[in-house]
Amino acid sequence: MLVLVTYDVATKSTSGQKRLRKVAKICENYGLRVQNSVFECIVDATQFKQLKLQLVDSIDPDIDSLRFYQLGNRYHSKVEHIGAKESFNVEDTLIL
Amino acid sequence: MLVLVTYDVATKSTSGQKRLRKVAKICENYGLRVQNSVFECIVDATQFKQLKLQLVDSIDPDIDSLRFYQLGNRYHSKVEHIGAKESFNVEDTLIL
Repeated sequence: MLVLVTYDVATKSTSGQKRLRKVAKICENYGLRVQNSVFECIVDATQFKQLKLQLVDSIDPDIDSLRFYQLGNRYHSKVEHIGAKESFNVEDTLIL
Repeated sequence: MLVLVTYDVATKSTSGQKRLRKVAKICENYGLRVQNSVFECIVDATQFKQLKLQLVDSIDPDIDSLRFYQLGNRYHSKVEHIGAKESFNVEDTLIL
């Protein structure tokens, strides 16, 4: 299924910048960056659980936030990209 | 239906900062900001078309980008928020 991960990490402090890098790094292991703080991940239920656990462990819940959107398996017609960095097919890219 | 709007606007220039403000302003007219560059909008097909047209008109497609995710009407169980700024119910808030 496609899971969209969006995040806001407070980066005023050095530790915030470190958290931001860590969050991005974790997301990169599961999916592809489609915008600055937006990742699209093709995961099964177990991977989704792991991804979530790792991200929750990496943020400061008082000042950072994570959002997860489950778009299921039939997501192609639900996603639209306009402008810079043309949209790509997450699954195609993962298969390569 | 719930439409998620995410955007990346290149803000190095003054005109970029102006575009960013305009994009946020348009999104505010249709929904609620849930993260820095993420809005959740409850719209019908006509409103969605209007929202998209206005946003497309406001960005520089060579350096900015927009993404739209259609989450349908039964989206409650598909959205999860963790961390700062507790999630809210978009429809409840719009009704108030």
